[in-house]
Amino acid sequence: MTLEALQDEWVRKYGPRTDLALEAREVVIQREGPPEIPGVAVETERTDVGLISRVVIATEEGGRAMGKLPGRYSTIDAPALRSRDAEQLEKVAALIAREIRAFLAELRVPPQADAIVIGLGNWNSTPDALGPRTVHHLTVTRHFFYMAPPAGRAGMRPVAGLSPGVLGITGLETAEIVQGLVRQIQPGLVVCVDALAARSTERLLTTVQISDAGIQPGSGVGNKRYGITRATLGVPVLAIGVPTVVHATTVVSDGLERLAAGGGFPRPAPLPGAGAFGAGFAPPGSTIPPPVKREVLEQVLQPFMGDLIMTPKEIDVLVEDAAETLAEGLDNGLHEELDLNRLILSAVGAR
Amino acid sequence: MTLEALQDEWVRKYGPRTDLALEAREVVIQREGPPEIPGVAVETERTDVGLISRVVIATEEGGRAMGKLPGRYSTIDAPALRSRDAEQLEKVAALIAREIRAFLAELRVPPQADAIVIGLGNWNSTPDALGPRTVHHLTVTRHFFYMAPPAGRAGMRPVAGLSPGVLGITGLETAEIVQGLVRQIQPGLVVCVDALAARSTERLLTTVQISDAGIQPGSGVGNKRYGITRATLGVPVLAIGVPTVVHATTVVSDGLERLAAGGGFPRPAPLPGAGAFGAGFAPPGSTIPPPVKREVLEQVLQPFMGDLIMTPKEIDVLVEDAAETLAEGLDNGLHEELDLNRLILSAVGAR
Amino acid sequence: MTLEALQDEWVRKYGPRTDLALEAREVVIQREGPPEIPGVAVETERTDVGLISRVVIATEEGGRAMGKLPGRYSTIDAPALRSRDAEQLEKVAALIAREIRAFLAELRVPPQADAIVIGLGNWNSTPDALGPRTVHHLTVTRHFFYMAPPAGRAGMRPVAGLSPGVLGITGLETAEIVQGLVRQIQPGLVVCVDALAARSTERLLTTVQISDAGIQPGSGVGNKRYGITRATLGVPVLAIGVPTVVHATTVVSDGLERLAAGGGFPRPAPLPGAGAFGAGFAPPGSTIPPPVKREVLEQVLQPFMGDLIMTPKEIDVLVEDAAETLAEGLDNGLHEELDLNRLILSAVGAR
Amino acid sequence: MTLEALQDEWVRKYGPRTDLALEAREVVIQREGPPEIPGVAVETERTDVGLISRVVIATEEGGRAMGKLPGRYSTIDAPALRSRDAEQLEKVAALIAREIRAFLAELRVPPQADAIVIGLGNWNSTPDALGPRTVHHLTVTRHFFYMAPPAGRAGMRPVAGLSPGVLGITGLETAEIVQGLVRQIQPGLVVCVDALAARSTERLLTTVQISDAGIQPGSGVGNKRYGITRATLGVPVLAIGVPTVVHATTVVSDGLERLAAGGGFPRPAPLPGAGAFGAGFAPPGSTIPPPVKREVLEQVLQPFMGDLIMTPKEIDVLVEDAAETLAEGLDNGLHEELDLNRLILSAVGAR
Repeated sequence: MTLEALQDEWVRKYGPRTDLALEAREVVIQREGPPEIPGVAVETERTDVGLISRVVIATEEGGRAMGKLPGRYSTIDAPALRSRDAEQLEKVAALIAREIRAFLAELRVPPQADAIVIGLGNWNSTPDALGPRTVHHLTVTRHFFYMAPPAGRAGMRPVAGLSPGVLGITGLETAEIVQGLVRQIQPGLVVCVDALAARSTERLLTTVQISDAGIQPGSGVGNKRYGITRATLGVPVLAIGVPTVVHATTVVSDGLERLAAGGGFPRPAPLPGAGAFGAGFAPPGSTIPPPVKREVLEQVLQPFMGDLIMTPKEIDVLVEDAAETLAEGLDNGLHEELDLNRLILSAVGAR
Repeated sequence: MTLEALQDEWVRKYGPRTDLALEAREVVIQREGPPEIPGVAVETERTDVGLISRVVIATEEGGRAMGKLPGRYSTIDAPALRSRDAEQLEKVAALIAREIRAFLAELRVPPQADAIVIGLGNWNSTPDALGPRTVHHLTVTRHFFYMAPPAGRAGMRPVAGLSPGVLGITGLETAEIVQGLVRQIQPGLVVCVDALAARSTERLLTTVQISDAGIQPGSGVGNKRYGITRATLGVPVLAIGVPTVVHATTVVSDGLERLAAGGGFPRPAPLPGAGAFGAGFAPPGSTIPPPVKREVLEQVLQPFMGDLIMTPKEIDVLVEDAAETLAEGLDNGLHEELDLNRLILSAVGAR
Repeated sequence: MTLEALQDEWVRKYGPRTDLALEAREVVIQREGPPEIPGVAVETERTDVGLISRVVIATEEGGRAMGKLPGRYSTIDAPALRSRDAEQLEKVAALIAREIRAFLAELRVPPQADAIVIGLGNWNSTPDALGPRTVHHLTVTRHFFYMAPPAGRAGMRPVAGLSPGVLGITGLETAEIVQGLVRQIQPGLVVCVDALAARSTERLLTTVQISDAGIQPGSGVGNKRYGITRATLGVPVLAIGVPTVVHATTVVSDGLERLAAGGGFPRPAPLPGAGAFGAGFAPPGSTIPPPVKREVLEQVLQPFMGDLIMTPKEIDVLVEDAAETLAEGLDNGLHEELDLNRLILSAVGAR
Repeated sequence: MTLEALQDEWVRKYGPRTDLALEAREVVIQREGPPEIPGVAVETERTDVGLISRVVIATEEGGRAMGKLPGRYSTIDAPALRSRDAEQLEKVAALIAREIRAFLAELRVPPQADAIVIGLGNWNSTPDALGPRTVHHLTVTRHFFYMAPPAGRAGMRPVAGLSPGVLGITGLETAEIVQGLVRQIQPGLVVCVDALAARSTERLLTTVQISDAGIQPGSGVGNKRYGITRATLGVPVLAIGVPTVVHATTVVSDGLERLAAGGGFPRPAPLPGAGAFGAGFAPPGSTIPPPVKREVLEQVLQPFMGDLIMTPKEIDVLVEDAAETLAEGLDNGLHEELDLNRLILSAVGAR
């Protein structure tokens, strides 16, 4: 079953799609109730940056329940990404690096196997530019690595970076470009960096998700659509992302439901004798009939509907901070010990 | 009374702010009922591109009712801006040029008076980059004009263009930069191009507003805040904009109100015997108590609240098309007859 | 024999390298004397834009003499590229389109075979950004093409575009990326657009070269270096370029030689009884001993030497004009009849 | 006497123009012989980054001899700018900061007086983008400063940054924009950052010049041309630059002269009995008649002549490294102690 089909099925059941496994799990648990979803395991670790939650989808059944491909999904809560504080951002980068190293060990990627970092998304649209900006800040070493003598390469990995652009810019499926490159280069690892869509605005620019389950970028041409996964590429795939948008439909739906449900009003009703929402309102716990919700969504989001995104005004600086942090996390996580000066000097000396 | 104070007062009365005079008027009329707002006049013209509505706020009282500075506001309905069709976009540009020429005649700007076009907004954030992108595409002639002999200048105007950047990039109020430049250059006209916020998603990238009432860019440093208006600069100011965002608070509020009011459901109730929204829902015509609405907004938009914007996914190509169209409209509207080759050749010949 | 080896051999014999076959031929003819180089044929056509010279290298021997791979090289003299005159630039674009169509007919590329346009070079360095800027302005149709029903595709070709970046940005050989993509997509044609190096400053931004002989981009990693040619890719390759730089070593050498040779001084000596250059100078026709020339080059170009390029101050506007012109030439040359609106509408209608 | 007139006179006497006072002085001393130029004093300081040379032009006579405005010119030899080594670049930044602080003390700029940093040059042309890129990397504090309470501002200066663009982009003289802004803001200091032209390729990207003598940007419109100096602005002006280009005419002339003079050939003649350059060449010490030199320059540089620049191929990464280093030097030199987090928190707390 493709990721797309899994997601579609999930959305029909649980509503707005999210790229975060952690959010998907919360929705399911909230709806279906504990205990844990069969085939899914979670563990958490408290760090001084924030909580790390590691969701493992071990079975097809778990994947179907989550609307995600089976695999590991680590979520780092990193409110510091929004702090604009250089010191805090370095701590986040260090935690990302540590988590990447754990994934590489798990995936048994040899220390000097080639890695290709793909910056997914559209550099012309700020909220979608996280991938290309991360690759821009990444330290690329592959060309120096292969020119340096073996001694000069100690502790380093050949890392390449490419931002292929989106379908509307190139006329090419990103997955086609990546697949062709992987066949040609035969790397030991592909890393995809992408801007994600969250379900909750609280997650915007405060969360890093790292996963080995693969992804499926953008929209497809005809039926040639395919994902970027270990199954399609034949090499391990690490996907790293930060939510930069919430779909407008998600937020508006959420508002409507909270209004109907009276959710989140733990305080007593403002007027004695009135319902939680005052006279004339639905009792707490109401739900909105789907056709009514759809009608309201159409009224306020037409003619764009699902093509409207919600993003912070300051998205330019937030994306830039996130991109620099991810790039530093990758620099420190992909190499055992990155010493660019030594590598360059070895490469130049070898010519 | 400053524009800011006018707007704040208006928002307290009528809810979500809009940069479009036409939308502001609709809200007031809808709430207060016809006949027309005192001090405000409207006329419309049907063209093959779309309807042009010309709102004139003639009095202080009208300005207060509208939450806008007194002046003329022309709104061109131009759905073609979203069509990605070169021929249609040229027609929109021609209509913009015609309307600009009408404003210049009204403002008695002499044909060879200097014009400075200011591209307001942040080039790093796609939805806010309309002003800088328009100035990028604008044909700048001032340097050639003053080098050419009088004969070579016939039909042309000296036009300069500057995108000063936003407060967060420069540490300077845009209005300070513009005011300094106007004092130094003493042009006959200042044109400001800016991305606008609409109240309705239908207005996104389908509407051009041209006004001589002046504007007040971005947020201010301390209390040194001031606008870009004829009163502050001493020269006529033309503001041209296209809505590229709707504030998230606006859309969510709108959804909540429509749900409560049952507005927009002209069809009979889906089930006989049930209310328009089904059992358990508020009767049509309900309104939401403000604290309830605020609570829901906070729940779904925290922690960004008013700092979340909603914009189309395809914003990069839509802003680029709008910027090219506005630039062409300005090129054709500011000069009696733009013949750049003749101007350059005259200028070079005169050296 | 690789292109690199051919060029190196040629440079040892004839001095400064040029990317233009026409210049290479002039040098050889000038040095070796007419008649024509064996295995090389030339024909010219006078147009109202400028002269088109078509050099055909038919044999290995001709390729070795020219320092180029065998194939066809069309050179369009287009001084209008430097005119900044929109009307003139359109005429150049039309001529480029006509020449591209002639190549496609010759290469028997079917009208609806996929074409991939590769923008070679570095977008961060203005003189090297011609390829990426051309792809930026190119109309990409492949994604619409495959979504449209056959009727909607009439007259159009699926065209994709990719600017992969240079080795220093990606750590990847451009040829590796292209080879992987070609294997994956299996197009009927690859077009490479690149900034060229000329031997003479007169050629800068006045010449368009179109060739089917393939190219060899940038510098290589280790010994994995390979070209982008029909032989390596298995599909026809069209290379299109415009010279944007002359190597500093070329220009300085040229100056030294002209001084020594007294070349270009057809006027009589200024003083009777003195040599062409006045007393104390070398007699006309002198040549400079290679070690002396090398010494002077080192003195004036150290520490960069071959890594210094010469380019016009106005390179930003010249590259942009050239890129727009090449993109228009490609748009009109690659399709029998490009009607983007029809294609998009068909594609959307088919969804 | 304007800077332009001073330079023109100097060029007539000494040949190719240079923006570096240190190079101008070397040429004069070499030509006129020691002792020192009247009205000019030099002192040097050896540091672990490189030599600092401080040229002081104290009199009008000295300025005329140097082709420069009177004032102080500090030149830091910093070959590390080309090293691509982060640690070395930090040392250069620290030295720049120290030198800036010395200038501020000399100019008696109060520690909390506003500073405006102007990024001169053209962001679309890589070799000319040093100023805009430096302002891009600069930490701008002015907006936070004036929102913070006095206690939060301790040790910091309100710093603004603006890259106005060049005449061809804006139609405005840069000096007009700066003059208007200074009148409006009335800062205590203007800093101009610009890409410079050197006379020698060895100086490219290895030298930082800091001066309080003011500058005269780009070319002028008609006769409205004026400089950016303390005299025209009424506030101290610091100009900071790094050479990124050598004019092509300079390098070719230099090559011709060295060939004629036999300069730089300290080794004995290769063949006994031959002159230093071998038979048939001019004797060492020859000079080239100016019309001959002009003729050769025209032959090899036409049709661009003075509009051709020479720059390293790797200019994109070199300019970026230099810009980041200058920005860090400014960040550390302009503030007594820059603590951005404290400043922002104070500003936000004060709202």
